[in-house]
Amino acid sequence: MSSAPVILRLGSIRYAQEAWANVEKKYNVLAIESDMTREKFLKELKEPNGRFSTIKVISRTYESIALTGRFDEEIANALPKSVKAVCHHGAGYDQIDVEPLRKLQIQVSHTPGAVDGPTATTHVFLLLGAMRNYSIGSHNLHHGLWPGNGSGATAPIGRDPSGTVVGIIGLGGIGRAIAQRLQPFGFKRIVYHNRERLDPKLEYGCEFVSFDELLKVSDVISISIPLNKSTHHMINKEVFEKMKDGVCLVNTARGAVINEADLIEALKSGKVRTAGLDVFEFEPEVPSELIKMPQVLDLPHMGTYTVEAVKGIEEKCICNVVSYLETGRVANLVFEEKDDDWVGK
Amino acid sequence: MSSAPVILRLGSIRYAQEAWANVEKKYNVLAIESDMTREKFLKELKEPNGRFSTIKVISRTYESIALTGRFDEEIANALPKSVKAVCHHGAGYDQIDVEPLRKLQIQVSHTPGAVDGPTATTHVFLLLGAMRNYSIGSHNLHHGLWPGNGSGATAPIGRDPSGTVVGIIGLGGIGRAIAQRLQPFGFKRIVYHNRERLDPKLEYGCEFVSFDELLKVSDVISISIPLNKSTHHMINKEVFEKMKDGVCLVNTARGAVINEADLIEALKSGKVRTAGLDVFEFEPEVPSELIKMPQVLDLPHMGTYTVEAVKGIEEKCICNVVSYLETGRVANLVFEEKDDDWVGK
Repeated sequence: MSSAPVILRLGSIRYAQEAWANVEKKYNVLAIESDMTREKFLKELKEPNGRFSTIKVISRTYESIALTGRFDEEIANALPKSVKAVCHHGAGYDQIDVEPLRKLQIQVSHTPGAVDGPTATTHVFLLLGAMRNYSIGSHNLHHGLWPGNGSGATAPIGRDPSGTVVGIIGLGGIGRAIAQRLQPFGFKRIVYHNRERLDPKLEYGCEFVSFDELLKVSDVISISIPLNKSTHHMINKEVFEKMKDGVCLVNTARGAVINEADLIEALKSGKVRTAGLDVFEFEPEVPSELIKMPQVLDLPHMGTYTVEAVKGIEEKCICNVVSYLETGRVANLVFEEKDDDWVGK
Repeated sequence: MSSAPVILRLGSIRYAQEAWANVEKKYNVLAIESDMTREKFLKELKEPNGRFSTIKVISRTYESIALTGRFDEEIANALPKSVKAVCHHGAGYDQIDVEPLRKLQIQVSHTPGAVDGPTATTHVFLLLGAMRNYSIGSHNLHHGLWPGNGSGATAPIGRDPSGTVVGIIGLGGIGRAIAQRLQPFGFKRIVYHNRERLDPKLEYGCEFVSFDELLKVSDVISISIPLNKSTHHMINKEVFEKMKDGVCLVNTARGAVINEADLIEALKSGKVRTAGLDVFEFEPEVPSELIKMPQVLDLPHMGTYTVEAVKGIEEKCICNVVSYLETGRVANLVFEEKDDDWVGK
C-alpha cells in the first residue's frame, strides 16, 4: 500500500499476524510497537501533516499503555480530526476515558466474550485455592512445616463447596462463565448482585440478592465487575466490615475495584481469611507486604494469558477495525455510547 | 461401660465426637491417640490378657501410622484372635497390607465416596494451575519479574481447555468427580483409561482409550488410581517417554504411583512442563529439588482436608465398625475381599 495510512496499530500482535496481513492487503496500516513515549505520541498526533494525520481507526493493546499512557482527555484532544474509532484489545477498557472521545464522536470498541472462558478458569483456580487455604499449605510445605504436622502442614482446614456460599459481584459474561464452571462442585448457594436482576435464563441457577445481603451471607466473594468511576474502591473498609469474619475474596477484574490498603488491613486482622488475586491496584507494582502473606494466592494478571484468548482478542479487535471501515460502525461498541444518535445503526 | 473393650480406635477424631459418643453408649471403646510406638503396639497386641485381648474391631486413621507403622504382615500376625475387622479412615488403604489380614479372615473396610468431591476439588485446582503455568507466574511475581514483562511476568503462555486434551488414568469415584467438574470448562477431549471400559452411563462423556493412546494424545495427564503392587511406579521413565513433550502431570492419588526420581528428571528436561502434586512418594518427606522448581504446584496432601470430608470419613468409618458388630459384615469391604466366601453376605 502506498497510500496514506488509515489504521494505527499500537502495540505488538502475538498470534493474529495472518489476520492483520489480510487487513493490510486492503488498508494501509501504520504499526507502532516500540520507540514511543507519551510525550512523543502527543507531539506527533498534533502534527498537521504528520504520519498520523490520515488515521481513521486506532487499534490498541493493553500493553501499549507503556508506549502512550492512558487514552485520556489529553490524548483525545490531540487526535487528528480524521480519527473516528478507537478499538481496544480486551473486555475491560479502563485504560480509556470514554467521555472525551464520545464528545468528539469517536467510537470506542472492546472485545467482550473472547475473554470470558479464560478469565473464568483463572477465577475458579483462585476461588478453589482461597476456599481451601491451598496457598497457606503450599507456603508451609516450602518452609519445612510438613513433617510432623499432618495434612495441610498446619494450614487451617478448608470447607467443602457443600458448606460454602459464593457471592458473585457482577454476573456479566465473565461472572456467568464462572457460575457455570462452579455448578458441578455443588456449592450450598451461589448468590449474585448486579444493578438489576437478570433474566432467569441468564442466571445459571444463581440467586439475585442486594449488595448488603451478598456481603452478609457469602463465605467467598467473587468480583467480576468492570472498573469505572462508580466501581473504583467499591470494596473498601466499610464494605469489609459488612462481610462475614474469615471471608475469602477473589478478584480477577481490576485491582482498583478494591482499596488495596484496606484489603491489607482486612487480611492482617483475619476479617479476610484468604484472597485470590490476579489483579492489583497499581500493577505491575504490587505491595510486597501483600504478596508476602501466605494467605494470598497471587498471579501476575494471567486471567486471559492463553494462546486462544490472546488470539481471540486480537481477531475480535480486527473485526471492530474492519467493521468501522466497511460499515461506519464498530462491532462491539462500549456501553457508554450504545444509545448515542451520532453512532450509525 | 465397664465390660472389656471390643473396639480399638487408633488416632484422633476431629469432628465425629458425637457419633463416637453414641457408639460408646453401646460398646466399650479403647482409644489410643498418643504415647504409642510400633514396638510397644506389637508387644501389647501379643499379651494374652492385655488391654487389646478382647478387641473385635480396630478403627484406624491415616495419621495413626505415626503410632503403629504400616498394618503389615507383622501386625496382622500379632493381632489377638478376637480381631475380626480393621476399619480404615480414607478411600486409599495402601497403609494396610490386605493379604495377611485376609488370610486370617479379618475384614478390611475403607471409606469410598466421602472423599470424592474434596479430592476432585484439589485435583481441578492443580490441573488448572498446571495447564495455565500459574505457579510459574506466581513465582516470577514473587521474584520481582513482573514490572516490565507484561502478563504472566515471563511465564510461558497457557492454553485454553478448548485446545487441551485431558487424560484421566483411573476413572473411579474420584476420577468421575473430576471429569464431572471439568465438563463445563469445554475441554477439547477428555479420555480415560481403566483396566476395563466402564458402562457409558458412568463415563461422564469421557472416551475410553488404551494406556498407550492416553499417553500419546493427552496434554494433561490426571492420575486417580489407588496405590497397590501393580500401580507402584506405574508412571516411570519409560512411560514419560511415551507422553507428549511439555505434558502437564497432576497427581492427587498417592505419590508412589510415580517414580519421583524419574519425575524430577522429566521436569528438568522439559518433557513434563508442569506438575500439580498433592502427594509425594516418601511424604511428608519431599525432595527440596522437586518443590523448588517453579513449574511444580505443590500441596502437603490437602486432597481431603476439609471439615466436611474429614467428618464424612470419620462417620463412614463408624458405620463400618457398627455394621460389623451388628451384622457381622463391614459396610465398605475392600475390593480384595469382595468375592471371599468367608465374609458373610
